Parts: sequence; C-alpha cells; structure tokens
Amino acid sequence: MSSAEPRTAGPDHLWSVDEHLEDVLTTVRPLEPIELQLLDAQGCVLVDDVTVPVFLPPFDNSSMDGYAVRVADVSGASEEFPAVLDVVGDVAAGSAGLLRVGPGQAARIMTGAPLPPGAETVVPVEWTDGGLGDGPVSGMRARGLAPEGAGGQVRVYRPAGARAHVRAKGSDVKAGDRALEAGTVLGPPQIALLAAIGRGTVRVRPRPRVVVLSTGSELVQPDEQLGDGQIYDSNSFALTAAARDAGAIAYRVGAVADDVDTLRSTIEDQLVRADLLVTTGGVSVGAYDVVKEALSHVGDEDEPGGGMEFRRLAMQPGKPQGFGSVGPDHIPLLALPGNPVSAYVSFELFVRPVIRTLMGLQDVHRPTVRATLAADGALSSPKGRRQFLRGSYADGEVRPIGGAGSHLVAALAQADALIVVPEDAESVEPGAEVEVVLLG
Amino acid sequence: MSSAEPRTAGPDHLWSVDEHLEDVLTTVRPLEPIELQLLDAQGCVLVDDVTVPVFLPPFDNSSMDGYAVRVADVSGASEEFPAVLDVVGDVAAGSAGLLRVGPGQAARIMTGAPLPPGAETVVPVEWTDGGLGDGPVSGMRARGLAPEGAGGQVRVYRPAGARAHVRAKGSDVKAGDRALEAGTVLGPPQIALLAAIGRGTVRVRPRPRVVVLSTGSELVQPDEQLGDGQIYDSNSFALTAAARDAGAIAYRVGAVADDVDTLRSTIEDQLVRADLLVTTGGVSVGAYDVVKEALSHVGDEDEPGGGMEFRRLAMQPGKPQGFGSVGPDHIPLLALPGNPVSAYVSFELFVRPVIRTLMGLQDVHRPTVRATLAADGALSSPKGRRQFLRGSYADGEVRPIGGAGSHLVAALAQADALIVVPEDAESVEPGAEVEVVLLG
Repeated sequence: MSSAEPRTAGPDHLWSVDEHLEDVLTTVRPLEPIELQLLDAQGCVLVDDVTVPVFLPPFDNSSMDGYAVRVADVSGASEEFPAVLDVVGDVAAGSAGLLRVGPGQAARIMTGAPLPPGAETVVPVEWTDGGLGDGPVSGMRARGLAPEGAGGQVRVYRPAGARAHVRAKGSDVKAGDRALEAGTVLGPPQIALLAAIGRGTVRVRPRPRVVVLSTGSELVQPDEQLGDGQIYDSNSFALTAAARDAGAIAYRVGAVADDVDTLRSTIEDQLVRADLLVTTGGVSVGAYDVVKEALSHVGDEDEPGGGMEFRRLAMQPGKPQGFGSVGPDHIPLLALPGNPVSAYVSFELFVRPVIRTLMGLQDVHRPTVRATLAADGALSSPKGRRQFLRGSYADGEVRPIGGAGSHLVAALAQADALIVVPEDAESVEPGAEVEVVLLG
Repeated sequence: MSSAEPRTAGPDHLWSVDEHLEDVLTTVRPLEPIELQLLDAQGCVLVDDVTVPVFLPPFDNSSMDGYAVRVADVSGASEEFPAVLDVVGDVAAGSAGLLRVGPGQAARIMTGAPLPPGAETVVPVEWTDGGLGDGPVSGMRARGLAPEGAGGQVRVYRPAGARAHVRAKGSDVKAGDRALEAGTVLGPPQIALLAAIGRGTVRVRPRPRVVVLSTGSELVQPDEQLGDGQIYDSNSFALTAAARDAGAIAYRVGAVADDVDTLRSTIEDQLVRADLLVTTGGVSVGAYDVVKEALSHVGDEDEPGGGMEFRRLAMQPGKPQGFGSVGPDHIPLLALPGNPVSAYVSFELFVRPVIRTLMGLQDVHRPTVRATLAADGALSSPKGRRQFLRGSYADGEVRPIGGAGSHLVAALAQADALIVVPEDAESVEPGAEVEVVLLG
C-alpha cells in the first residue's frame, strides 16, 4: 500500500460514493509480481511481454497420417495407374533419427512427425492401399497388430503437390515473435500458448490473499443453536465467497466478539497471511462499535500510510465505512458495515475493485447498463444519498426485489443486479431509465 | 454413467456435431449429490428446496444505535422541550438477559440488539444528547471510554412513532418459507442466505474430478530441452485450465508416450480419482494411435455402458473423436484429437457441456450470438463439415484470427470467439451474418 496524499476531509465530511472509491483505489497498488507454475497462474495478469524462443512448429511436419514421398514419384498417379513405391520404414511423432526417402521410396508417416530428408510431400493414407494391395484404405492398421505395415510396397492412387499436408516450421509463430502482451489475463488458450513455446512458469501478479472476519457478539456459527438475542453469522461466509468470486484466495476467520483486545489480537494474527483485510460490523455510531475503537491501535501508526479512517458515505445501504491500513506492512483494510445487505453491497462497490486492482487487472468494476424500471409503483429514495436497490435484470428491464431494508438477505439471494438511484432523485417512476450494476 | 441405448451407427458413419453431442450428453448423468460445507459448495447446484427453519430476524431488533423507549414518553419531545428519561442500562447486540424499560425510562440500544420488554420504539442517538447534556450528538462514545453512558439521564429531542427503527421478527423470512429452490447455483448471496438461516452444510452436486492426459511420444514438458522431432506438451495444460474454468476439479497427468501398455496402466491408475477422463491425441487413422488401441481393453467391457467408440465427425477442426466409458464404474472418457486447436475446440464443444451436465447445471453450453463477419476476403470452408474458426468478437461484429490450421495456437490465444461455418456453406462473404460461440 502506498502512502497516498493525506486525507484532508474532516470527520463531518459526508463522502460521496465516488470520492470514497477514488480514495480507496488511488491508495491500493497492484501486488508485486511472482513467478508461478503455468496452471497456478490461471486468471492472473501477465507482467512482461512474452517473446517466443522457438519456432512453432519447430520443424516441418506432417498434418496427416500417410506416406512421405517425392513429388515426381506420385505425379500422374491414379487408381488405374497407381505409383508403386518401396516403403523404407515408419516416421512416428517424436522420431529423432530420420529415414531418408530416395527416388521410388516412401516412408510411412504419422500426424505431427517430422518430414524426413528427401521427402517433398505427404500423401494421406486414404489415397493409398496402405501397403495391403487391396485398393484405397480408410486408415493404417495399428502397429501392434501389423508391424509389417512399415515395409513392403505401397500403391499411391493420387498425386500430391510440393509440401502438401506439410505444416511448415515457424508457420504458427517464429522465434522472436511476441506471443503475449504484458497485461494479458491468462486463460486456457494463453496457457496453451505458453506451454507450446516451452514456458513452464510465468511472471504474474498473484491472486491477493484476503482475510474476512465479521464482528459482533450476537453472531453464532451456522449449525449451532441460537440463544436469545443471537443471529447466525452470514457476512463472513458471503464475503469469503464473494472474494473468491472476484479472484482472491480468501480466508474466512469467522465471527469475533465485540471486544477490542480480542479483535485487535485476531487482526494482528491474521496480518501474516493477508494482502487485504475485510471486516464487517462495528463501524457505526454505537458504544460497542469495536472495529472503530480497535483499529487505530493496530500496528505502527507513525509509519506513512498507516492508520484507519472511519467515514459516513452518502449512500444507502452502506453509510458507515472504514478504510486505511494496518500493521507494519500497511496492509489495506476495508471495514464494512455489519448489516448483511450493507456488507454485500459495500463489498461489490469497494472491495471487489480493490481485489481486482491488487491483481493488476484493468477492468476492475462490475459492468453497468441502462435499463427501464419495471415496478408496480414508484421507488422512493433518500435525498442526497445514492441508493442501491436489489433487482432482477433481463432484456433491458430491471425489476426491484424486496425492499430497501439492509437486513433483507432473502431478497438479495434472488437478485442479480443493483438498481442505482442517484443522489438527487427522491423517487423513480416505473418506466424511467435507471443505471443497473450487473452482479452475475 | 448410464447404460445408454446401443450406438448403432456403423464405423463408416460420419457423425454430425449435433449427433455426437447428443449422444454424449444423453449418456452422462449428473453426479450423485453430497453434503458440503457452505464455502465448499460455492458454484455448485442445490439439490433440494431449502426451507427456512427460523424467523429472520429471529426477534424484533433495533435498526439504529439509539435509545429504546415508550412512545408516550417521547411524544411531543423537541429541542426546546426534550423528554428527559432515566437510562436503565445498555442493550448490546447479542444481549440475552434483557432490561425492562418502564415508564420514564430508556435503554441505550445498539444496532441489531433485541428490543427490550416494555420498549415500543427506538430513537436514534442523533435525536438525543447521548446522555451528555450538551445538545444533539453525532454518536455514542465508546463504552471503553465512557461506561457512564449506560446510566444517568438522556434528553430526547424528537418523538418517535410505535416501532420506529425496529426490524420486526420474520420481516426478512418466516419459518417455513422456501429460501432457495432446488437447481439454484450457489453464489455469494445464496451462501449468505443459507448461513443466515443457520445452514452450515448443504446438499449439492459436487464439482466433477476431471483427469486430463495428453498422449504422444513427441511431447516434452515445458522448461525441458526439445530434442529432434519433439514439441512441447500444451494440451494437458490448456485442457486442465479449461476444465477448471468450466467448474471442475482438474488433475493434469501430463504427457504419456505412445505405448499401449503405459497408456492403459496410466488410465487404470487414474480411475480412482476421476469422474471424467479426457485424453488428447492417438485417435486418428495412424499406426501409432494408441488411445484407440488401448482403450477398448481398459476395465471390464462386458458391463453395460462400458467400452469406447471412435468416430469421424463432420467437423473442422476435430474430425476424429472417441467417446465411451472405462473401468468397472464406467467412468466417461472423451478422447480428443491431438492438435492443440482441435483439442481446445473439441473441449469447448463437447467436454465443457459434459462437465456442466455432471454438475447438474441447466445451462451447459457457451452462449452464441449472431454477428456480422468482418473480414478482408471470403472465408472458405470444406463442404459437408461444420467449421469452427477462431475469431474476435465485439459490438455485433466478428473478425477471423489466424487461419484454419489446427496447429495455430498463437492465433487461438488472441481469440475470444469461434465463428461457425455450417456444413452446407463452402464460403462466407464479408458482411454475411454468422453464428458465433462466445468463449469469454
């Protein structure tokens, strides 16, 4: 985490969503690159341009199972007047010591095998008698069943031009070509290319390790018995899943009681495995909001970039938010509100882009579209706050799901979009065009 | 794998892409459900409807940090004439033994804490003096700093109607409601809901374990030295990555030499950890095509559903394909051709849908769109075969990338779509509308 410009806004400043997001994203920096095994780098961002060290294919090779021959020996060949050639042996894929094909000779050749010296072209086995003397065949007999296939004579029934069915050395890529650009996200085809040019490891920005913990003395682990005044912890599960969905390696710490010392020591313990910490709860104006109380004392706040700031955002849900860094390495920490819907919406808007920034991705935000509001009545929204309502989007229309309450997690589970009601709108009529964040 | 109807098409039958796909997909069955921890079930398909066992929230609770009071005690309160109430203590989230709020009394209450007996409504702390006697406050002082805040008197400056800032028991979901339908894919919001209703585990279809192995004596592991006639193994990397991308737990076995006994014993060894096997190479008409040779002898082919069939498909790339099952448990096996582009395209068209079918997903195919062909010249395509060309898609237009050669892995790494040229077309002009498979 870099030492960003000092945040000068006072404690009474009401931050807009965009101000907060900009502050967060200009502060976090992509993780330092590391060298990873190819398959461990899947989904990661390439740091350097990759140049091809070899020709691909590395040698002229056959694109068919057939016979490697000289052009002159098969010119004019037909079913009526086949060319009859002496078979000098097999060239299998991976063959090293190559046969030489002289005039009047043929080498049986397999797909991918190097074109042997002396041969100028390949005739597919379907254009020959396969050495059996009974007219055109549909394939070769397996070597195990017919080792004699590699000798004797073959009848060729059609001519072939020079270098027919031959894949030329370097026809895919040439040594010195740029295979992939820095910034490329490594999916299966990019991994295919890296392997094909002999790269077993690659330098990428790693997936961030994200530690998720929820706070609240009322929280009980699922499958345990609820006591009076208790609820199940859902945030640590939801946000761990959401962090994985965003590309992170996520660790769920689970619920920590509202006790400053416990919270502080839990966070200090987690710093060793965290590139990012996410907490839920304890950030509002109550007397038991221990995240606020605890986090200004974690690590060395004299170092630049250290320290946490707690803010009010012009946003619903998600008004109280904390952001800063903790520990000697200034690990970024986002302290989200504790209501499940507030926590989830805050994660989508702020934490997901942080994770993707840490990964070095260019495109860190969820896609947004304009859509027509399909609703039974007008949506109301608090003036001066940007509201994010849960919705269901399809075919250019979005329909609100559930109400505005930040505890309505059942409705959240049916939603696939957030409907954005801007700060200056107090109501939105059905049929109006609205901005929609697609969550899928 | 079920015992599907016998495949009656003879060895000379040229299968269409659709016939082969239908044969494959009607043969494989979704995996048997298992009970998984919530976070291990991410991305999996729920097998049963989930009914809510508790009310959510389980009790009336405060949506604000403030004071729980009786309505009559604060009616008519104003800044000039505040209601002055005796603070009988704190109700924190997670509180069990509750204070009782009598006439003229208030309990300091935190967000999420249960509404104590006797209290009828909540006034936010910002509508009070917070017990400090100095006019409206912006929040409570942390309990650690000001334990006296839980006692003394509080001045309330605004009235509150009955049950203001109270989230009613069951207002999110009620016991007996259906939380999630069978067939739902579990993303972060669904995991949030399951945790919130106390479900620590859930019955889903697991991610399939897919074993990927490439065959070919010419294949060398990346980072090793290439000898004459050798190339790097890319298929095992590409298809392992693609299997993970499709949702599977994938194991890369790597390259196996073209030797029947080695291949057979490798496959037999892998059966214990495989719900699906994928091989590349060795399925064509050559004499060294050992996959074909080896696979009819793996396991017990007398059992129904056992055995492999090798076919020619009316398709480019990807003409030779093998499909069937191996071993005593009839583990499905797809034997793909060995050229990297053929293998990748075959994976996208056939293996990805199999993986998603094993997961129990409804939507097993990549999305397709219609697009306008943007190209410098006409595309040519072999008559009678469905061609899949690599392309780049944006804004309703698709542009071919690289040529038709099945070894052009560099071009594949730049593509994000497959352009489909149907069987009856021998050429497609620029500006024509084509079907496009989106790979992203």
